[in-house]
Amino acid sequence: MARISTAPIKGARDFLPRDLAPRNRVFQTMRDTFERYGYEPLETPAIEHSSALEGKYGEEGERLLFRILKNGRDLESAASALLNGAGAPGASQETTEGEASSAAGRSAGELARALSEMALRYDLTVPMARVIAARQNDILMPFRRYQMQPVWRGDRPQRGRYREFYQCDVDCVGSRSMTVDAEMVAIHHEVFARLGFTTFVTQISHRGLLDALMEVSGVPTEQRVLARTQIDKFDKIGAEGVREELRRYGLAERPLAALLEAVSVTGAPLDTLATLRPLIAQTAQGEQSVRELEEIFGYLRAMGVPAERYELRLSMVRGSDYYTGSIYETVLPGSGLGTLGAGGRYDRLVGMFLGRDIPAVGISFGVERILTAMEDAGLLASDALTTTHALVTLFDAETTPASFALAQALRAEGIRTEVSPDARGA
Amino acid sequence: MARISTAPIKGARDFLPRDLAPRNRVFQTMRDTFERYGYEPLETPAIEHSSALEGKYGEEGERLLFRILKNGRDLESAASALLNGAGAPGASQETTEGEASSAAGRSAGELARALSEMALRYDLTVPMARVIAARQNDILMPFRRYQMQPVWRGDRPQRGRYREFYQCDVDCVGSRSMTVDAEMVAIHHEVFARLGFTTFVTQISHRGLLDALMEVSGVPTEQRVLARTQIDKFDKIGAEGVREELRRYGLAERPLAALLEAVSVTGAPLDTLATLRPLIAQTAQGEQSVRELEEIFGYLRAMGVPAERYELRLSMVRGSDYYTGSIYETVLPGSGLGTLGAGGRYDRLVGMFLGRDIPAVGISFGVERILTAMEDAGLLASDALTTTHALVTLFDAETTPASFALAQALRAEGIRTEVSPDARGA
Repeated sequence: MARISTAPIKGARDFLPRDLAPRNRVFQTMRDTFERYGYEPLETPAIEHSSALEGKYGEEGERLLFRILKNGRDLESAASALLNGAGAPGASQETTEGEASSAAGRSAGELARALSEMALRYDLTVPMARVIAARQNDILMPFRRYQMQPVWRGDRPQRGRYREFYQCDVDCVGSRSMTVDAEMVAIHHEVFARLGFTTFVTQISHRGLLDALMEVSGVPTEQRVLARTQIDKFDKIGAEGVREELRRYGLAERPLAALLEAVSVTGAPLDTLATLRPLIAQTAQGEQSVRELEEIFGYLRAMGVPAERYELRLSMVRGSDYYTGSIYETVLPGSGLGTLGAGGRYDRLVGMFLGRDIPAVGISFGVERILTAMEDAGLLASDALTTTHALVTLFDAETTPASFALAQALRAEGIRTEVSPDARGA
Repeated sequence: MARISTAPIKGARDFLPRDLAPRNRVFQTMRDTFERYGYEPLETPAIEHSSALEGKYGEEGERLLFRILKNGRDLESAASALLNGAGAPGASQETTEGEASSAAGRSAGELARALSEMALRYDLTVPMARVIAARQNDILMPFRRYQMQPVWRGDRPQRGRYREFYQCDVDCVGSRSMTVDAEMVAIHHEVFARLGFTTFVTQISHRGLLDALMEVSGVPTEQRVLARTQIDKFDKIGAEGVREELRRYGLAERPLAALLEAVSVTGAPLDTLATLRPLIAQTAQGEQSVRELEEIFGYLRAMGVPAERYELRLSMVRGSDYYTGSIYETVLPGSGLGTLGAGGRYDRLVGMFLGRDIPAVGISFGVERILTAMEDAGLLASDALTTTHALVTLFDAETTPASFALAQALRAEGIRTEVSPDARGA
């Protein structure tokens, strides 16, 4: 047999038992916490119709899809069609005559659509939205679900970035109540606390509040996306850093000063909100977001989440465009590790397959980064290298029945027991 | 947005919470049992290098691989190479000149090798063998591992046959001791008993014993594969059915009669083996297999596996060619469901990537069929439709803190508690 590489593919990992002990403990803590909050498991197939994934992740995301090659006759005819310049189904209309004569002239995207019609899932949100559309009559709202499954992305692998990795998502779909937003923060708190973290903080903000602050500060509409991106760097480069950046991009001094002053307000959440309220009172959006945040902070208190474990942080922005309300990020200050988990309300995404809005709020946990943080914090030291607790030795034929009886008695008590294959070893 | 199908791909399933309750209970029972016997989890990536999978599953299996399409530039140059007749790397040597001028002239297999270099795993045995080769220095023998992960096969979907489905494998690698063979049967017993089955039987036989019986019966070497295939139908068509089939294929009357007499011997395993021993005494293989089976039955007794839950069944053959010793199949007599789990010793497969033999014995569980059998036997009735145990209602602003405090108190006791989003519903 030819020499074959035995390494896993680039960006994926084999997990030996010793690797799985901490991973499974983290997963189990999450699962148990989610279920304590009334969330139930959902699982979807690894392979999806490409049509369900396309147009959901932007051009860059779409390039990273792992696509499944067509098979048998389907593959042969797709290849023939490409070769004969007939164009692939669905791609033919975009193909100019010049391109049609040569498969080589096609872009990777066109070739992919011609040669494939399924792909591996890229995240867990789109499959959830698909299931909600497909099973409308089986799913009661609010639908509280969690999903912990691998996803695949053809990214260039690097330290801490994998091509196959687990996502852990918790979502509540179908409710506009702020009790659910607060529940998300409470779940974040409980998971991180149960994993043993003692210094984490969940930063809380609201998309509508930041928008309102930009409005009242006089940041022109066309500069708001830019301003948001820069404000997101507040923790890294400080108020002065952000000021310089935004100056450089040509934001005028007055709105810049007003905005920076607003997002720099600190203190107890309800006090801060009281300070900001008169500022944004004339914007409908601002008034609503302050009210929603006040509700959330009130519920968190009622839920007994310790006050030092969360804060209002107006400079926390979250990258994704799809959030429509409250947003959260849990960090370990000083760890240099970035976000361990994040989420928010996104009322316009889950209904994508139904063509109507369905309110939803969700969080996710960055499992790989959490494991790194636990290792750094010495929280994995207690994980045994093996799940097995007892080893029973076989001595000779005469005592073998007694050895086996002992092993079976231990097992019946739930004690994980290995029997050494025989007296002379394997 | 164009109307997009929201159904999962053909042959794959979305699992809602109510579907996962019984599945997860079955998985958990298996996991817990495996760990009680000292087996530890192994997980490998969904995507493998095609080179690690090719040549392992026969031509038919290889056609069923889900292959990952190359991406970006790699895809463009593979398509160009196909078009220009330069042939794909690795495929060019097999390509005749006539074929080289046209992608359309290529077989699906050639196209697949040109356009793809990775594929989804097809089973869990080849990945395990790959990991054992890759991590020789990290893995202590005997290596007791279990693996429960999905596999993918591009089969035509039909009732009970899926394109994405879980396999559950338990293997002990690196020991020739029959204690491990017996352990496999004991694990089968414990899993099925703990799932609630009361009428199952694990049939036990040995490849070497059947071969020896064919030898002493005078079945010519070239007819043995055929004879084995027919004998495997013994349970379905009876001794007379097998006799007719083998007659039709031209097996002479004397060996036929001798063979059928031998495989029809019934009774307590050790008595049956005593009856057969003089018959096969002159064959080295027969003597060894009788000795091994005697050992296994002795250990099963010592382990306390109830005698009515296993039997020696010489007409049980197991399809796969790779077994080299003891073999087992667990069935529910009269259920019409076929095999719920099976396995055996296969000393020549696990070393495939190392180029040397490594002894191994393993079993697998047919999860989908087991769930069907449990449903038929009424063993799923106790699975709740939800994992949630308590619902706390919010009445009004004044009592909300009390409602949340109650919910948190219940959760702290591990009671799965949902809070209804607000007094007026979602």
